[in-house]
Amino acid sequence: MARPQTDIEAGRQELLEVVDDLIRKRGAVDISMTDLASAAGMSPSNLYRFFESKDALLEAVAEKFFAVKVRIMEEVTASDLPVREKMYQYFARRFEAMVVQYEAEPDLLKSYMEIGSQHFEVVRGYVDLGDHYLALIVAESMEQGYFGGLSIDQAVSMINQMVQCYTNPEAIIYIGTGKLKVEKLAMIVDAIFIGLGSKASAALAPEPHIKIVS
Amino acid sequence: MARPQTDIEAGRQELLEVVDDLIRKRGAVDISMTDLASAAGMSPSNLYRFFESKDALLEAVAEKFFAVKVRIMEEVTASDLPVREKMYQYFARRFEAMVVQYEAEPDLLKSYMEIGSQHFEVVRGYVDLGDHYLALIVAESMEQGYFGGLSIDQAVSMINQMVQCYTNPEAIIYIGTGKLKVEKLAMIVDAIFIGLGSKASAALAPEPHIKIVS
Repeated sequence: MARPQTDIEAGRQELLEVVDDLIRKRGAVDISMTDLASAAGMSPSNLYRFFESKDALLEAVAEKFFAVKVRIMEEVTASDLPVREKMYQYFARRFEAMVVQYEAEPDLLKSYMEIGSQHFEVVRGYVDLGDHYLALIVAESMEQGYFGGLSIDQAVSMINQMVQCYTNPEAIIYIGTGKLKVEKLAMIVDAIFIGLGSKASAALAPEPHIKIVS
Repeated sequence: MARPQTDIEAGRQELLEVVDDLIRKRGAVDISMTDLASAAGMSPSNLYRFFESKDALLEAVAEKFFAVKVRIMEEVTASDLPVREKMYQYFARRFEAMVVQYEAEPDLLKSYMEIGSQHFEVVRGYVDLGDHYLALIVAESMEQGYFGGLSIDQAVSMINQMVQCYTNPEAIIYIGTGKLKVEKLAMIVDAIFIGLGSKASAALAPEPHIKIVS
């Protein structure tokens, strides 16, 4: 008799906790279905009722890892915030979630980063999803006259580069949270809105050429 | 009889080539003075005439690794270029040198990066030197009215974050040179000059409030 779907889902969540524990113990080594079954005290054939393959397991691990970030991206892009505030929240809330994750268990985050780079095909979809949501904010900003002269893809690419330190967990590990502050991120987002786009040629003509008129 | 200083210097350069070869063969493993002496076909006591300690060897390796970047920083900051162009050259020329280095021997660069993170005390001085030269450009820009409302340290920190992808060799390895282009870097530097500073509050007030008057 097949188990009800909710039992399957609850079992999956418990197994993902076992994966966390295995990674805490062993670091970023590859976890086989046999290892996981043994650590969970079940037979391999029983494990396959929850995850039909190693790939399905990896996808579930990634889904759990990115769940908070995906929820933030959905909430922020669906909100009625002004575009500049929307972009700030989009990056700041994900950054803050990452800091919490890092400070709670730095080694676990490092291990997941390493596993992610070993299985980048699974991570790729989430990177693309991030670009998709950012493109929505960029398109909305363009309707309001920002980023003139750039395509959506160009703007997304340059914005990603300019805030890289706040999106790449490697940067938190490398630079440290002492130098990465949401106050700085806010000023970087301001600089992106004021400075990125066709007004760029004005860079060679300093302030005497620009006047605040209201 | 002590060797003339020029012979010592020539010998050091040859030994640094041997270090390159050892790293090519072995990767980022720690190289002892005994290993190096053996690879160079000389006795350890002879090797100590060229490098008085392992630390002296590591410093010479770092000096060679950063030589091109230091020369670029010195040349650019000493030049008469306009400040915006100066900052662009400061980052673009170093980025291009790094791409050449990476494309010639990606594995050698990766190994040196790893050795650098194992001996960060040796690298630290070069990071600080980079900040020092950037601070010179920032100070000159501030005299011309840029980055208003920020301290030199704040501006240096945020600029470093915004161009991180073009200064950190890890980013070249991770992002790839397909997405990192000096044309994009030029627009990011423009955005820094136009957008970073006390005008930031204007970000919430889009273009109707700003008018180009000449």
